[in-house]
Amino acid sequence: MKIALIIIGDEVLLGQVTDTNASTIARLLYKQGLEVFKKWTVADQESEIIQALNEASQQADLILITGGLGPTKDDITKKTLAGYMNVQLVFSEINKEHLTMMLTKRNIPVTELHMAQCYLPANAELLDNKLGTAMGMWMEYKQKIYISMPGVPYEMEYIMIHGVMPRLAEMNQNIKVIHQTIHTVGMGETEIASIIEPKLGALPDYISLAYLPSAGQVKLRLTGRHTDTELIQQELMQFKHIIDECLKEQILGYGDTSLEQEIGNLLRNQNKFLSIAESCTGGFLSHKITSVPGASEYYKGGVIAYLNDIKESILSVPEELLNNHGAVSEECVRAMVKGACEVFNTDYAIAISGIAGPGGGTPDKPVGTVWMAFGSRVEIKTRKFLFSRDRLRNIEASATYALIEFWKMLK
Amino acid sequence: MKIALIIIGDEVLLGQVTDTNASTIARLLYKQGLEVFKKWTVADQESEIIQALNEASQQADLILITGGLGPTKDDITKKTLAGYMNVQLVFSEINKEHLTMMLTKRNIPVTELHMAQCYLPANAELLDNKLGTAMGMWMEYKQKIYISMPGVPYEMEYIMIHGVMPRLAEMNQNIKVIHQTIHTVGMGETEIASIIEPKLGALPDYISLAYLPSAGQVKLRLTGRHTDTELIQQELMQFKHIIDECLKEQILGYGDTSLEQEIGNLLRNQNKFLSIAESCTGGFLSHKITSVPGASEYYKGGVIAYLNDIKESILSVPEELLNNHGAVSEECVRAMVKGACEVFNTDYAIAISGIAGPGGGTPDKPVGTVWMAFGSRVEIKTRKFLFSRDRLRNIEASATYALIEFWKMLK
Repeated sequence: MKIALIIIGDEVLLGQVTDTNASTIARLLYKQGLEVFKKWTVADQESEIIQALNEASQQADLILITGGLGPTKDDITKKTLAGYMNVQLVFSEINKEHLTMMLTKRNIPVTELHMAQCYLPANAELLDNKLGTAMGMWMEYKQKIYISMPGVPYEMEYIMIHGVMPRLAEMNQNIKVIHQTIHTVGMGETEIASIIEPKLGALPDYISLAYLPSAGQVKLRLTGRHTDTELIQQELMQFKHIIDECLKEQILGYGDTSLEQEIGNLLRNQNKFLSIAESCTGGFLSHKITSVPGASEYYKGGVIAYLNDIKESILSVPEELLNNHGAVSEECVRAMVKGACEVFNTDYAIAISGIAGPGGGTPDKPVGTVWMAFGSRVEIKTRKFLFSRDRLRNIEASATYALIEFWKMLK
Repeated sequence: MKIALIIIGDEVLLGQVTDTNASTIARLLYKQGLEVFKKWTVADQESEIIQALNEASQQADLILITGGLGPTKDDITKKTLAGYMNVQLVFSEINKEHLTMMLTKRNIPVTELHMAQCYLPANAELLDNKLGTAMGMWMEYKQKIYISMPGVPYEMEYIMIHGVMPRLAEMNQNIKVIHQTIHTVGMGETEIASIIEPKLGALPDYISLAYLPSAGQVKLRLTGRHTDTELIQQELMQFKHIIDECLKEQILGYGDTSLEQEIGNLLRNQNKFLSIAESCTGGFLSHKITSVPGASEYYKGGVIAYLNDIKESILSVPEELLNNHGAVSEECVRAMVKGACEVFNTDYAIAISGIAGPGGGTPDKPVGTVWMAFGSRVEIKTRKFLFSRDRLRNIEASATYALIEFWKMLK
């Protein structure tokens, strides 16, 4: 079954919104061994939507569509779909009931504009949306399946999980695509390739290897496609084993994992507690750590010591030290780790102090200069980095490299 | 000039990476009045790339391509482009020099795999990339322009800003698309539409209005397209004025702004300092506030009081209060605001305490229950919310609604 996506929305094409629906849909499909082979993103214009439907239906069996189901002027998906499939728009009592219930719950009066939302292509089966007014639609036309969902990410996700995936699971009993993902840390894409590819040799044509680099990390994804599931699984395990042997020290974990999850596992297993003292990252490092469910089992808390007097008053960084070395210094982050371990009563602390930019740089300490420290009351390691990106990317890179260095230390 | 994007990458189609390049490119083009009219996202497969190039070149004059320029196996863009344009792949000394310089800087030995990156379609002009090894390429074929850039977001952005945009600016002297964006807070899309549309009446066909909803906010985007720039500007101002009159209290700001920026402006103008005490949001609220350049002019710092003993020790929340009411309570967030104002010596503080999930819920306080408080040492307002999303979305919604409520209070 070839699956295509059509994302409708001027806001996405104009870059006012970054589309996350496509990756959410792809991840949900992937769990059932299904893959999106192509995606179209088009404007809120009838002619563009029709053109994309034409292109997609020539190449795909199942077409998932998001966007353009709301009540306002730029929402024209339903009308366009009805025209494309040559069916009438009919008023749906089920949709009306749903809409009235959702609006009543929120104390919003039902208007004519809302009622316009209840006209659907005559061949549409409705898919429930407990999180919003716009329901999903499942349509079949010329032996292809068209599924239309609202563009609001959590509403779309609700409809995918509860309405679309169960029906697709019934249709697709034979899973024939299997992935193995290996997360590595601290080595570049090319270096990894030059180490593992000679050992892997030529891969059979039904197995492929992809490199997914991000700051300081590379994910290796082995994908097997074959009718014989057992065969692929065995071969993938063999290749995974070879990669494991080559990259031992660099391997963070497998499958759906992340630096913050692996750090959490290590701390939980060692029965240790962590605190964080951050300056230039402004809370982002703590956010990464606490994005993992159950983080309270090993993370006690943190301080965002944005101004120097907070570094003094809460973390007991000596005023003299700040005067002599400045807040962006090895001495300062050392003192921040000590202070955090004390005030939070934790085994470990991570400290970051730097210049995220765009202002605040000096010839000695240009924008992007970041000092980090990791350790306990007795032993502290430090690292200096120079990132040369914009503010948000300097913040993200600082947090990522702090996690990498702390993970190495814990391991 | 019709502009299309082709995003190449299995990792994007599989949802392992969310594509941010498309919105970055669109935002850069938009500044020069240029719009992307359509986007294709395709797999790292020659046949799929060729098919997308065929489709795009039939509809567009300029085709921007990202992805597939690295040295590893899944990178096939150059070979495919050369084949599509019917030119040879030739070895580029300029590219070799660039690559050698970049690798030497990073102390990485130059290998054969790296050298393979230096073969380019014969008609390619190189675009500099100071942030990575893969350079951009500007190619012309059958009166269409093809621009190929690496998929790494900051490298792509560098090439767009320094290589692509200046050349496009020269080609496109007449800007004929103008936007006006109005940010509103605290009212839904439909409610806004029912208020403003009767007042706006029928828009001329060269002006369109789009609603861009996100949690608690709706952006209204007026777009004018006409040969007469002055005419559009005047008319847009008139429609903007009507919307302003209708939505006075709900208007956050105009153009490229955000809640955290507007809060920053208000605090800076009032010469007040803010601190934050957060629990369930784990640093994300502070991150939002500090994502704005110059936040140190009004934000002193924050505490992530993840465990109760931190709420007691740093924020002086009484143990008895926590025992009687629990950490997720109106009493607790009130005490947290007072404590934060004291310990950080700030005029205002925001406090959040809640249950982000998936664990930790009770019948009385289910997952998604969040208490917030905003105020000073003398006056504190509180609000309770019940979000029913997953962990990360509960965290994001909590931070967004805290910013909305605090903005309302400041204003």
